[in-house]
Amino acid sequence: MRLAKTSFVISLLLLLVQIASAQTKPRARDLGVPFEGTPGPLNAITDVKGVEVGVTTLITGEVRTGVTAILPRGKDSADQVFAAWHSINGNGEMTGTTWIEEGGFLEGPVLITNTHSVGIVRDAAIMWALKHNKMPQPWALPVVAETFDGGLNDVNGFHVKPEHVFNALDSASSGPVAEGNVGGGTGMSCYGFKCGNGTSSRKVDGYTVGVLVQANHGGRNLLRIAGVPVGAEFSRQSTPGRPGNNDEEELGSIIIVVATDAPLLPHQLKRIARRTTHGLGRTGATSGNGSGDIVIAFSTANSQAAEAENLAQVSMLSNNRISALFDATAQATEEAIINALVAAETMTGAKGRTVQAIPHDRLKEILKKYNRLNETK
Amino acid sequence: MRLAKTSFVISLLLLLVQIASAQTKPRARDLGVPFEGTPGPLNAITDVKGVEVGVTTLITGEVRTGVTAILPRGKDSADQVFAAWHSINGNGEMTGTTWIEEGGFLEGPVLITNTHSVGIVRDAAIMWALKHNKMPQPWALPVVAETFDGGLNDVNGFHVKPEHVFNALDSASSGPVAEGNVGGGTGMSCYGFKCGNGTSSRKVDGYTVGVLVQANHGGRNLLRIAGVPVGAEFSRQSTPGRPGNNDEEELGSIIIVVATDAPLLPHQLKRIARRTTHGLGRTGATSGNGSGDIVIAFSTANSQAAEAENLAQVSMLSNNRISALFDATAQATEEAIINALVAAETMTGAKGRTVQAIPHDRLKEILKKYNRLNETK
Amino acid sequence: MRLAKTSFVISLLLLLVQIASAQTKPRARDLGVPFEGTPGPLNAITDVKGVEVGVTTLITGEVRTGVTAILPRGKDSADQVFAAWHSINGNGEMTGTTWIEEGGFLEGPVLITNTHSVGIVRDAAIMWALKHNKMPQPWALPVVAETFDGGLNDVNGFHVKPEHVFNALDSASSGPVAEGNVGGGTGMSCYGFKCGNGTSSRKVDGYTVGVLVQANHGGRNLLRIAGVPVGAEFSRQSTPGRPGNNDEEELGSIIIVVATDAPLLPHQLKRIARRTTHGLGRTGATSGNGSGDIVIAFSTANSQAAEAENLAQVSMLSNNRISALFDATAQATEEAIINALVAAETMTGAKGRTVQAIPHDRLKEILKKYNRLNETK
Amino acid sequence: MRLAKTSFVISLLLLLVQIASAQTKPRARDLGVPFEGTPGPLNAITDVKGVEVGVTTLITGEVRTGVTAILPRGKDSADQVFAAWHSINGNGEMTGTTWIEEGGFLEGPVLITNTHSVGIVRDAAIMWALKHNKMPQPWALPVVAETFDGGLNDVNGFHVKPEHVFNALDSASSGPVAEGNVGGGTGMSCYGFKCGNGTSSRKVDGYTVGVLVQANHGGRNLLRIAGVPVGAEFSRQSTPGRPGNNDEEELGSIIIVVATDAPLLPHQLKRIARRTTHGLGRTGATSGNGSGDIVIAFSTANSQAAEAENLAQVSMLSNNRISALFDATAQATEEAIINALVAAETMTGAKGRTVQAIPHDRLKEILKKYNRLNETK
Repeated sequence: MRLAKTSFVISLLLLLVQIASAQTKPRARDLGVPFEGTPGPLNAITDVKGVEVGVTTLITGEVRTGVTAILPRGKDSADQVFAAWHSINGNGEMTGTTWIEEGGFLEGPVLITNTHSVGIVRDAAIMWALKHNKMPQPWALPVVAETFDGGLNDVNGFHVKPEHVFNALDSASSGPVAEGNVGGGTGMSCYGFKCGNGTSSRKVDGYTVGVLVQANHGGRNLLRIAGVPVGAEFSRQSTPGRPGNNDEEELGSIIIVVATDAPLLPHQLKRIARRTTHGLGRTGATSGNGSGDIVIAFSTANSQAAEAENLAQVSMLSNNRISALFDATAQATEEAIINALVAAETMTGAKGRTVQAIPHDRLKEILKKYNRLNETK
Repeated sequence: MRLAKTSFVISLLLLLVQIASAQTKPRARDLGVPFEGTPGPLNAITDVKGVEVGVTTLITGEVRTGVTAILPRGKDSADQVFAAWHSINGNGEMTGTTWIEEGGFLEGPVLITNTHSVGIVRDAAIMWALKHNKMPQPWALPVVAETFDGGLNDVNGFHVKPEHVFNALDSASSGPVAEGNVGGGTGMSCYGFKCGNGTSSRKVDGYTVGVLVQANHGGRNLLRIAGVPVGAEFSRQSTPGRPGNNDEEELGSIIIVVATDAPLLPHQLKRIARRTTHGLGRTGATSGNGSGDIVIAFSTANSQAAEAENLAQVSMLSNNRISALFDATAQATEEAIINALVAAETMTGAKGRTVQAIPHDRLKEILKKYNRLNETK
Repeated sequence: MRLAKTSFVISLLLLLVQIASAQTKPRARDLGVPFEGTPGPLNAITDVKGVEVGVTTLITGEVRTGVTAILPRGKDSADQVFAAWHSINGNGEMTGTTWIEEGGFLEGPVLITNTHSVGIVRDAAIMWALKHNKMPQPWALPVVAETFDGGLNDVNGFHVKPEHVFNALDSASSGPVAEGNVGGGTGMSCYGFKCGNGTSSRKVDGYTVGVLVQANHGGRNLLRIAGVPVGAEFSRQSTPGRPGNNDEEELGSIIIVVATDAPLLPHQLKRIARRTTHGLGRTGATSGNGSGDIVIAFSTANSQAAEAENLAQVSMLSNNRISALFDATAQATEEAIINALVAAETMTGAKGRTVQAIPHDRLKEILKKYNRLNETK
Repeated sequence: MRLAKTSFVISLLLLLVQIASAQTKPRARDLGVPFEGTPGPLNAITDVKGVEVGVTTLITGEVRTGVTAILPRGKDSADQVFAAWHSINGNGEMTGTTWIEEGGFLEGPVLITNTHSVGIVRDAAIMWALKHNKMPQPWALPVVAETFDGGLNDVNGFHVKPEHVFNALDSASSGPVAEGNVGGGTGMSCYGFKCGNGTSSRKVDGYTVGVLVQANHGGRNLLRIAGVPVGAEFSRQSTPGRPGNNDEEELGSIIIVVATDAPLLPHQLKRIARRTTHGLGRTGATSGNGSGDIVIAFSTANSQAAEAENLAQVSMLSNNRISALFDATAQATEEAIINALVAAETMTGAKGRTVQAIPHDRLKEILKKYNRLNETK
C-alpha cells in the first residue's frame, strides 16, 4: 500500500512534468512529418468540445503502467453518447462492447490500462460511477480496454488499484493531452521503439474528429511514416531498440478511441470505427495474430438523446456527407500513432530491460532521403 | 412467352379469388387458436400505415411459384425507410443486406420469390425503379429473398419473369393481405403441411408491429401451436401430407419481414429483427442446417430521413420503451406462421406431388385435448 | 476479511448441503414436466466428458451472490477448446468474447458472477492461470459473464474476492451439478420467481450437448413451461413472489453455456450458440431491453488443436449432421431454465426482500389443467 | 440477340488480344514500383494451385462491361472450399455471403460484373451449375459481386446475358491473368484513372496468397503508390482523366478476392479478408460512402472437407503462424490494385465519355522524385 501511495505521488509529479514538457516536446509535424488534412487547435482528441482526458502514470520499481481515462462529455456529465466499436484483430479486451452494440450508447468513460488490470479498472469504474451518481441503469457495464506492457512492466504484479482509476477520472481535463509514456501507455512499445499514448484531430466541414491511441503494436520492419519505409531503413542499420523483426508484432496491440462532434448515429459510428484501419494500415501495420487492435467511436452530438423518457429527437448527418469524416478518421489515426512514437522517450523498466525512443534526427534524415521532410516546419 | 402470358392471366384470376376467399377463409384465431397480444384491425402487416403488399401467383403446368412484394411506404413513394436485417440460419439468400447494414436504409421494396429466381427478380426490381424514378443512388441494390419450392414447383425451369415482378409491385395495395398459396409462398410447405404466406400484427403503446412470412420450414414433429405439441400428435397417426420426419427441416426456410411505425433507428431495428427467433422458436422450429431463416425489419417512421441534404432530424424511441415491441414482434411472428399454415390449401404440383393442408378439424381437436382451444371464437 | 472468511466457510457448508439435497430435490422432469429428447445420465452439462463445474456460494448478512466456474476440460487441463459466442440481447457483459471471435478458442474457464464483480473475477482468473501455469499466451483474456442480483444481494458492496474465484475453480468437479441458489446464481430470480443455476443435457447421434444457465430473466406473465402458459395462470391469482408484471424483464438476464463433445469448428459453434434462442423463446422470454442474454458454446472434441506448432489435424462434423445438435441445444436450454426455476428455493436477502420459489404443487396442477403433466413420473 | 452474338465474338477476340498483350504490357513492378514481399511465378491469383480465372469482355456500341469468373478449384471440380467474407464499406452487393457466413463453404465460383447485372449473372450461375452437375444442395446460392460502370457503360441497358456468364466460366484457365479493361473490370475507373481487373500474389512459409481485384474506387487526390502521394502530384497539374476531386470516390467500389492454399478455417479466412483493408489503405483509399468495398477469401486446402458424409478430417494452420499470411494479404492487395491501374488503357465509352489511363512515364517521374523508383527494373 505504501508503495502504491508513493508511486501515486510520483505519478502526479510525472504528470505535471509531462504537461509541462508537452508544450516543448516536438510532435511529429514539428519534426516535419507531412500529414494530410487540417488539425484542430490542439491537434488532440480534446479538440472535440467536451472531451476530457486524464491519466495516472505509475513509474516506480518494476512498475511501468497506468490508466488513461477519456470522458466523452467531461467528468461532470452523466449524459450518454452514441457509440459503436470495431475489432480489427481481437487478441485483446474491451469490456462493455456488447451493450454498446445492442443499445447504441456509451454510458460512461473509456478507460485504458494494461491487459492484466482490466478487471480492477472495470470494477473501480463502477465504484466511481456509484459515488458520482452516474448510473443510467441500476448496474453499470464499463468500457475498459488494454494493451500488454509485459516487456517493461511487472504486469503480473497487478499494481493498478482503484485509486489510480479514480485519479485518472478526477484529474481529467480538456486542453492539451500528454503523449508518450503516460497513463495506460506508460510501458508500451510500437514498431520496435518506445511508444504509448498519442493523439491528433482533424477539422472538416465544420466538424471535428479526434483520435487518441494507446499504441503498442507492430514489428519494426513494418513502420511507414508519411508513406516512407522508415522501418526498413532503420532495420538496415543496427539501430538500438528492440530487435527489429516482425515477430514482435505478435506481442503488440493498439486501442483506438475516435471522438467526433458530428451528429452520427450508432450505425454510422461503426463506419467511422472501421476507417481507423485505413489509417493504421498507412503506418505499416498488418495487425498480427497477437495484436488486440480494438476501436471505439463516439459522437458528442445529440446530448440528452439517452435521457428522453419516451421519444428523443436526434440529428443525423446525411450519409452523403460522411465520406469527409472517413478521410479525417484515417488521417487523425495515422498522425496519432506517429505522435505516440515521436513523443515517447527511452525507458528502462522491469528486469532492467530498455526500449529506445525513435531517434528524431535519424527519422528526419530518412524522411529527407525520400523527399518527404516538410522543412518549413 | 405465350405460356408466361397465360400463366400471368391465370395468376391475376387467382389473385382475385384469393382476395375474395380471404374474406371467408378462417384464419388461425378464427379456428380458436389462442394468441397473446392485441392485433390491428386487419391482423396483417398492412396495419402499419403505408405498407402495401402485392403478389404474382404462378400456377400452371409444372409451375407453382410467384413473387411477393412488400412496399414500406407504398408503390408511389421513393422515400427510404430505416432498416436492419438478421440471419437466424443463413442457408438462403437476401440480397441488398450489405448496404442495409452499412447505410441503415432500405431503399425500395422487399421482394420474395423462389430460390432460383432471385436474380431475375433483383434485376427486374432495378428496371422497375428506373422506370418509376425511384433510384436514390445512380445504382440500385434491391432486396430480394427466397425460399425453395423445389417440391411442388419446377424451380429449375426459371419461370419467373420481369413482368411478374412488375405486376407484384404495381398491384400492391394496403388492406387485407392474401395468405397461403399466393405470391412467393405459392409452392411452399412448412412443418410437413402445405404452407406459404402468412401475416399478423400487434398494437402496443400506440404503435403497430406487422409481420409477413414466407414460410417453408420445419419437420412435422417439431410443430407447436399455442404451446401444444401439435406435430407430435399428428405424427402419432398416419396423417396424410409429407412424411413427418425432422429431416424435412433440411429442405425448408422462412423469410420474415417485420414492419413497424415505431420510430426505431437501424440498430434498434436489428434488435427487433432478432426477436423473431423467439416467436419462431415457439412454433417449434430449430432452424435446421438447410434452412434459410432470414429477417428484415423496417420502420415507416422518420419519413424524409434519407432525403436531407445535410442533417436529418429524426425521432428515436427510448430503449426503455422498446421491450413491448419485442413482445409484439415475437407474438406477431408466431401468429403469422400459424396463419400461413392454416390458410394454405392442399396443392398438387410438379411431378404430380401433393402436399396436404393441415386439417382444421383435427387441429381443433388436438388443441382441445390440451385445453388450448379458444371456443368462444 | 473476517466476514469474507466466515462467509466462505458458510459457502462450503452450503455447497455440501446443496450437493446432498441435489440427490433428493425433485427436478423439473421429476415433477412431471414433459420435455423432448433424451438427456444424458446426469441430465447436466457434466454429461459432456471432461467438463467440470465448481461454485462458491456467498450467503451472509446482506450478501447473496457467488461464482460459478465451468472448466471445459477440467481444472487440470490447460488445453484450449474451440468456442463461439452470441448475444441475444446485449445488456450485459461477457469478457473475452472478442478474442474468441477472432481466434476461435476459449483459453480457460467460463466464470459467471454478479454484474459488479466481473472485474475482480476476471483478474482473479488471471492470477489462478498464472499460478497453475495455464497461460497459452503471455497474457490472458478470461471469459467472465454476469447477471444482476441487486434485488437480493448487496451488489454494490463488491463482496466477491479472489479467493472465492479460486475456490470455485479448485473445487470444480464432474458429476452432479447443484442447481438453484448456488454459485453465481445464488441471488437470481426469473419469471418473477426465485431462480439461479440450472442445467440439462441431451444425447443425440452419439454426441452429448450440455447446457448450464444462470437464469435471472423475464417477467412472470411470460412464463411458458412445456408450452403451457404457466405465467398467465399464476398471474390470474395473487401468487406470492415478485409482482408479476412484464416490466420485471427489464431487470433480468440469462447467461447460457453450451458444451458439446461433437467435433464442431468455431463457425459451427456459433450456429449452436444461436439455437439457444429457440429454447429460451419456448419458455416465454422475449429478451427485454434490460436483459443481458449472452451465450457461449464450446466443443471438447479436437483436444490439442491449439497446441500444434504449425498444423493441427482436426475433425469437423458435416453440416448435414448438425441439425440434430440444434434440436438438442434448444431442448437442453429449455429444460435447464425450467430446472433452475424448480430447484431454486425461497430466499430472503438484502434489505429484507423475499423472492418466493415457484410452488411445485401449483405448477403441477396447472400442467395437469393443460394435459401436460407427465404422471408416470 | 444478333448484337449480343457479335459482341460476344468481339469479346473473344479481345480476350486473345489481352492474353497476348499480357505478355508484353508492363506491370507495376516492371515500371519500377517497389513492393514488399515475394510474388509467385505469375504474380497472380492463379499462383494458388487450382484457381482458374475466366472473363467475358463486352465492348461494343455503348457497352463497356463484362463478367469475371474465379473458380477456386477450376471449372471441372465441384468440391467446395472453406471461405469467409468481409464488408469494408457495404454500398455494394455480393450475393451468397449469408450462406458462406453460416456454413463456412463457398460452393461454386465467384463472379464479378456490373451492379445492374448481378441478378442475371446469379441465375445464370445456377443454370451452369445445374448443367454441369455442381449442386451440393438441391438449390444454389451463387456468389456474385459488382462495381458500378455507369460512367463508361450503358449499365441500364442490362447487356450481360447468360451466355456471357457461361463463357467466362467455360473459358476459365490457370496461367497468366489478363488485367485492366477486361471482364467485369472492363468499364471501371479508380483514383480518377481508367482501372479494372488487377492481380498479384505472395509466397510465404511455403504457402501462396493470391489476390484479384475489380477496382473502381477512390478519388484522384487520395492515390498513394509505394507510399508516394501520387494523386496529389497529379492533381497539382491539369492531368487529363476524370476531374481529380474526392467526390468521385462516391461513385466507386472495389471487389477483392483472396485465394490461398494455406489450410485456414472459415474463422481464420475472415481474419485474412479483413487484412485487405490494410493494403487498400496503403493505396490511399478511405472507402467513401458510395463505395462497395467487399471481400471474399477462400482456401483451396482441405479438399473434400465438404464431401464427408459424417466427419471430415481437416488441417488448420496454427494461429501462431498466420501473421505472415496477413502481411502477404495486405501486400498482394496493394499490388493488385496498382496492377489494375497500370494495366488499364484509356477508354472511350457510353455517351462519348473518355477516361484516361495513368501515364506511365509521369508516374515514374513522380516515384523518382520521392526516391521510390526501383531503377533496376
